[in-house]
Amino acid sequence: MRHFRDEDALVKEIARHFLPNRGRGVRRGIGDDAALWSPKPGFASVLTSDWFLEGSHFLREKHPPDSVGWKCLARAASDIAAMGGTPRCFLLNLALPAAVSGKWLEGFLAGLRRAAKSLDCVLAGGDTTRSQRILISVTVIGEIREGQEVLRSGARPGDLLYVSGRLGEAEHGLRLLRKSRGRVSPRNVAVRKHFYPEPRVALGRWLAERKLATAMMDVSDGLSSDLPRLCGASGVGALVDPTKLPLPRGTDLESARHLALHGGDDYELLFTVSPRSVGLPDKFRTLNLTQIGEITKGRTVQMVGKDGARQPLRATGWDPFRQKK
Amino acid sequence: MRHFRDEDALVKEIARHFLPNRGRGVRRGIGDDAALWSPKPGFASVLTSDWFLEGSHFLREKHPPDSVGWKCLARAASDIAAMGGTPRCFLLNLALPAAVSGKWLEGFLAGLRRAAKSLDCVLAGGDTTRSQRILISVTVIGEIREGQEVLRSGARPGDLLYVSGRLGEAEHGLRLLRKSRGRVSPRNVAVRKHFYPEPRVALGRWLAERKLATAMMDVSDGLSSDLPRLCGASGVGALVDPTKLPLPRGTDLESARHLALHGGDDYELLFTVSPRSVGLPDKFRTLNLTQIGEITKGRTVQMVGKDGARQPLRATGWDPFRQKK
Repeated sequence: MRHFRDEDALVKEIARHFLPNRGRGVRRGIGDDAALWSPKPGFASVLTSDWFLEGSHFLREKHPPDSVGWKCLARAASDIAAMGGTPRCFLLNLALPAAVSGKWLEGFLAGLRRAAKSLDCVLAGGDTTRSQRILISVTVIGEIREGQEVLRSGARPGDLLYVSGRLGEAEHGLRLLRKSRGRVSPRNVAVRKHFYPEPRVALGRWLAERKLATAMMDVSDGLSSDLPRLCGASGVGALVDPTKLPLPRGTDLESARHLALHGGDDYELLFTVSPRSVGLPDKFRTLNLTQIGEITKGRTVQMVGKDGARQPLRATGWDPFRQKK
Repeated sequence: MRHFRDEDALVKEIARHFLPNRGRGVRRGIGDDAALWSPKPGFASVLTSDWFLEGSHFLREKHPPDSVGWKCLARAASDIAAMGGTPRCFLLNLALPAAVSGKWLEGFLAGLRRAAKSLDCVLAGGDTTRSQRILISVTVIGEIREGQEVLRSGARPGDLLYVSGRLGEAEHGLRLLRKSRGRVSPRNVAVRKHFYPEPRVALGRWLAERKLATAMMDVSDGLSSDLPRLCGASGVGALVDPTKLPLPRGTDLESARHLALHGGDDYELLFTVSPRSVGLPDKFRTLNLTQIGEITKGRTVQMVGKDGARQPLRATGWDPFRQKK
């Protein structure tokens, strides 16, 4: 087990994993009071910051450290993708217990570095300290061409409601993980999606550049929690057809539908498209795009029931503040 | 005691305290996946992120909630000031235990709002969740005219070493606080500096615009910890004259010198000035500027001893990773 003598030693270890700590517009990275980042003229910065806490967002005994590293950056980058932006650099706030080994840190930094490389996103700075549990806070700074951003508030009645990839797969992976003893091999596709979600940056940018999406957000807390947020911001309702949901594999139909409606952590894009817009293809590259419903006039979010009658879609996705009943 | 039904309710409560959540270049604040910020052409973004954790950086029973709110933003903004930049907007990551009352949150947000107003810095977004202790991570995004930034790495042998305000005062305040039973009135000047430090934004910008400072950083962990970082980045040494240190009031000379050398949390600016530069005034507005030594060729940080001999200045400032001896 390796310990870090002081904060400077830990910062040096982190910096060593992310050389060079500049480029892509980052003119000054780790090593000063703050980082310097120059967006290009005609581009705006897109800013987001996310918690990733031991016990709430990951379990030290269940999640491999490289998945913790990958996921803490990927989920923040997903918020940039959900505006149509491109992640450019990030700040890492890391608090470690004294008993965390150098091996855990090594794995964490390797996963984080892999995500940073895959996203072409530079580590520009952050802060380190001690704590009883592992605490991570990641800020991602992205850019977008001025006026191209896709907000949550642009959906209009009649717009078609789309989602990328599959819904509920990551939650299915989490359940497999919970049932297992000790750590699980990430060979299972659902476990892999839970461990290493891929933010849909290219899709988000494509939809934004072509002005195809009227509103967009990422599905992080589950469709039944997130869709009402998009509808609330736009002042509209929605009608979801559960038979059209892109379901997770490897489970029965009833479970799969429940997972797709309420499961969190997928980081797929949920977006609306005007019916007057050119038809969307079934796929963007290899990623499925599925129409799962449409935007309605009322302010309620509903589902088509078995008998064809509409029933309300109740939020049972993941929300740390929702009181247990 | 007021509880928050869910995450959306907590976010709404925070947003209500910071209306309007846009302006100063922030085109889209709270309420979407990410915030949009447009720096002006010819300006670069300055990025910094800081921990502020219950138990490490503040004690719930000792620190008034409005001091926690003020200080978590002020100390991050101080890193922007230390580059010569101007804070523009910030992201707040807040994790609260279920048992934290609405009254604590009200006080916290009032202090944070006061700091945001004083710094003219807009709350642009962030993330909320539950945790066992109060966890805060603040990211500040500032701007600086391209090429005007003052780095830690620009000090040259012969440069004069300056500090703003008084050193050790905040640590003196912390000691008074620790000795007291329960909470302490912030009427005492040292306690007030510990509770409500004022980042030296105007001074930093003035030094940067006039290209007076060759290197600069803020003193957050104490002179004996921070000065070696500036010297290390610049590849130089320093000689400090302890008789010149601007000391805290209300304690004997020996304690005052110790506090000024090693005390943390002052958020004063430590900077170097070329001897060929026009002489610096004794004051910037009402803030004292004191020459406390000079930059030397070697790589060691030394002090003038009682007998005139040089002795090494050992770091005993605050570092959560330094092992107890």
